[in-house]
Order: sequence, then C-alpha cells, then structure tokens
Amino acid sequence: MLKTDTHPEIRRAVVLLSGGLDSATAAAVAKAEGFRLHALTVDYGQRHRFEIEAARRVGRALGVEEHVLISCDLRSIGGSALLGTCDVPKDRSDERMSQDIPPTYVPARNTVLLSLALAKAEQLGAGDIFIGVNAVDYSGYPDCRPEFIAAFEQLARLATKLGVEGKVGFRIHTPLIALTKAEIIRRGAALGLDYRLTHSCYDPDAMGRACGRCDSCRIRRRGFADAGVADPTEYQTEAGPRASPPAL
Amino acid sequence: MLKTDTHPEIRRAVVLLSGGLDSATAAAVAKAEGFRLHALTVDYGQRHRFEIEAARRVGRALGVEEHVLISCDLRSIGGSALLGTCDVPKDRSDERMSQDIPPTYVPARNTVLLSLALAKAEQLGAGDIFIGVNAVDYSGYPDCRPEFIAAFEQLARLATKLGVEGKVGFRIHTPLIALTKAEIIRRGAALGLDYRLTHSCYDPDAMGRACGRCDSCRIRRRGFADAGVADPTEYQTEAGPRASPPAL
Repeated sequence: MLKTDTHPEIRRAVVLLSGGLDSATAAAVAKAEGFRLHALTVDYGQRHRFEIEAARRVGRALGVEEHVLISCDLRSIGGSALLGTCDVPKDRSDERMSQDIPPTYVPARNTVLLSLALAKAEQLGAGDIFIGVNAVDYSGYPDCRPEFIAAFEQLARLATKLGVEGKVGFRIHTPLIALTKAEIIRRGAALGLDYRLTHSCYDPDAMGRACGRCDSCRIRRRGFADAGVADPTEYQTEAGPRASPPAL
Repeated sequence: MLKTDTHPEIRRAVVLLSGGLDSATAAAVAKAEGFRLHALTVDYGQRHRFEIEAARRVGRALGVEEHVLISCDLRSIGGSALLGTCDVPKDRSDERMSQDIPPTYVPARNTVLLSLALAKAEQLGAGDIFIGVNAVDYSGYPDCRPEFIAAFEQLARLATKLGVEGKVGFRIHTPLIALTKAEIIRRGAALGLDYRLTHSCYDPDAMGRACGRCDSCRIRRRGFADAGVADPTEYQTEAGPRASPPAL
C-alpha cells in the first residue's frame, strides 16, 4: 500500500506550499538540498483563491514531482479573520503587530497542516517534511516555535506505521525558523526564486493585487527594503494599480 | 476572539463522532461525566455517507450543544480501502485480521482528527477532547496507542494560545482505550446508548445495511455476542434484508 523508494539515493520530501513568500522559500531550500518535491497545498477556506493560484505557480517554477491540493474547510470552526469571521486589521503600528497573537491567527493551523503533510509523507514512504514557519517576525504564533516543531516530530514517530517500524525517522525541516524576513528574501533570491509568483496579502483586490497595508503586506514590504532586494509585488490603489506602494 | 466560559462550573468537551460504535460510546461517557458536548464529525472522503448520517443521529440522541461537520478530503492522499483506492477485505480469519495493519488504515488519520478537534477546542476555549480509540481490538493501528495519545497531549499544550498561556491544560480522553469490544458495548448499553443509531460496516449496501463480513462488521458482531447484548444491526443479503447475519 505504501510506496517506498527502490532507489535509496532518491530523497523525497513533502513541502507545505501556501503560495506565500515563506513557504516558497522553504520549498526552494528543499530543492537546493537535493530533495524531489511533493508539494502539498491545503485549502482551509481562505478568503480568496489567489494564494492557491500562487502556490500552483511556485510549484511549477520549482519543478515539483507532484502537487496535491487538499480541501480542509476550517471555516466551520471559525475564530479568525483569515477565515472571514472578522475584519483584517490595517496600518497597525509595529508595537501593536508584535504585541499579541494577531486576529488572523487560525486555531491550531500548523498542527492541522503538519498532520496532513504527515499523512502524505506516510503514503509516500518519505520521512522529510518542509514547512516555512518563522519564529522571528510572528513571535505571537505558538505553533511557529522550535519546541512545537520538536513535539510534532516526536508525535510523527509514534503516529505512523513507518515511524513505529523504525523504517523512517520523521524530520520536520524548518529552514526559515530563525531568519528575519530580510534574510529569508536574500536566501530565496540567491536560490533564484522569483517572488513575483508569491502572494502574501490578507486583503487583495479582485485582481489579486496586494493592499500594502495589512500586517502581512507591511512585513513583506519591509523585508524587501531591509534585504536590499527590489520588491516585485504589484500593489492596488483605489484608483487602480500604481507602481509604488503606500508609505510604510 | 476565543470564547471562554464565564461559568466555570460548565465543562465543555469536543467529542470526535464518526458514527461508529466506539466514538458513540466515548461521547456517551463524556456526557455521563458531566461535559456539555461539542460534537465534531470529519468527512475525510469516506466511501459512503451512512457514517455521517449515523453521527448526526447519535449527536441528536445525546443532546449535543453543537455539531460541527468539517470536510477534509484525504482522498487526494490515497492509500486506503476506506478512501476507495483498493477493495475492502471480507471474511478474513482472526489471525489475518490481527496480523498486521489492515488495508483500511488511513495514513495519520487520528493525528488529523485530533488536530481538527484541537482547533475546535481552542476556538471554544475548552481543554477536553474525547476520542474513541481502542488499543485492544485494532492492535495494528499505531495511532491508537497510549504513547501516541500522550504525545498529542504534549503537542496540544505547545501548539495553542490557550495551552502556552497556561489557561487550559489540554487533555485527550480515551475512555475506551483498554476495553475489549464487549466491554465497550456493555458500557454504552449501561449508559442507555442505542447502538441501532450507529454504523460500523466498511461496505454497506445502497440502503446502508451492514455487510456482516468486513473486519469492522465481524468485530462488532462478535462484540455483541461476547457482551451478551442483542445485536440491533440490520444486515444485508443478496436477496434483501434478513433477520440474522451470516455465520461468524
């Protein structure tokens, strides 16, 4: 039932690909480390489809072997702006952004995402999972911290046939966990990743253009500025697209 | 964003309800322990809808406060008979059934189910989750063992805002984990649970009647026989329904 590689030199990894800047960079790192990529994109009922389209673009650009889209509708649970139950905050101060867990927090999101990646990994007979979590910019998310990741690795070994039989020692790779947004962008740019393919905005317009003002846009824009890399993002205005975003 | 009970004496629990005999019993135990029940049924792409209808019936009978249905389509991952990718085995010997992990195994299923229950629990501000796992009859499933459950409890405390802030000490209740099927049935019967509402068969006919021959039916039938409780299940025949099932 489980596929196991007959060529031991072939290393396969499941990469969680959201369409955002971080997960695209984590996937590019996995590719650079020699893994064959099995991308997994989870549609958990996001407000817009642009993230999923971006994930597809990034997957194609990275030459993934397979791209699996799983629908897992967390909207029935509720409790998050990303899932459309309250407004996306705009123009928040740095202090406010870092103060507490943002209202865009999805309950237990990374636990759900890693569980689905684990299911795919077990089906594939692979033990390597890449996730683009980051503990620097989003310090408020409990499920982005190294101790959470370590606990999930431990769980994965006990949860699966492959783990229990000792055939696979599951490893959750978090290549971005200790990097700043600027360092992430420099890493991806050095690997040739085209960030124009990615989407970060929590509140895009009908064309998918970024608002430039939500927490995610602000962190992304500052990241490009700090990295000294030109920001390829197309931003919206009320009167239409413009070349430069609103002031940071 | 998170609802927290203002009346501390009200204890709420998320109960995973599949529509099967075990999860119905676990939910009945939760109710008997004084919890207000928030039922969570996950449609992960099962072959038939009878399980979900059974979960609804059981939820209504137990007077749940809320019944959440989440669609999380694991079919894209594949690798299991329950998800329609290979045939359901019939008339297997006891030896064969207990020999190895059955082909109806869904990769990482309980990890996914508990993750979704954790998301619901965090949204609700509740720390108690009930799951009807059992380590006796299905010894082949790695994610039914006490060490897996303990690892998930540890993960839950690290994964959530409520856990990290120490507001909630997550507990995964597994009231059936050490019981035989006969003991489970006696427990549920003593609590007044009507097992006619539940559905166990992996391969029902178009009317939802049980085949009586798949592993799940065989274990259930023997459970009623061993418990000395009349089996209320309606079984199918090729010529139509009949009162008595095929020989065990």
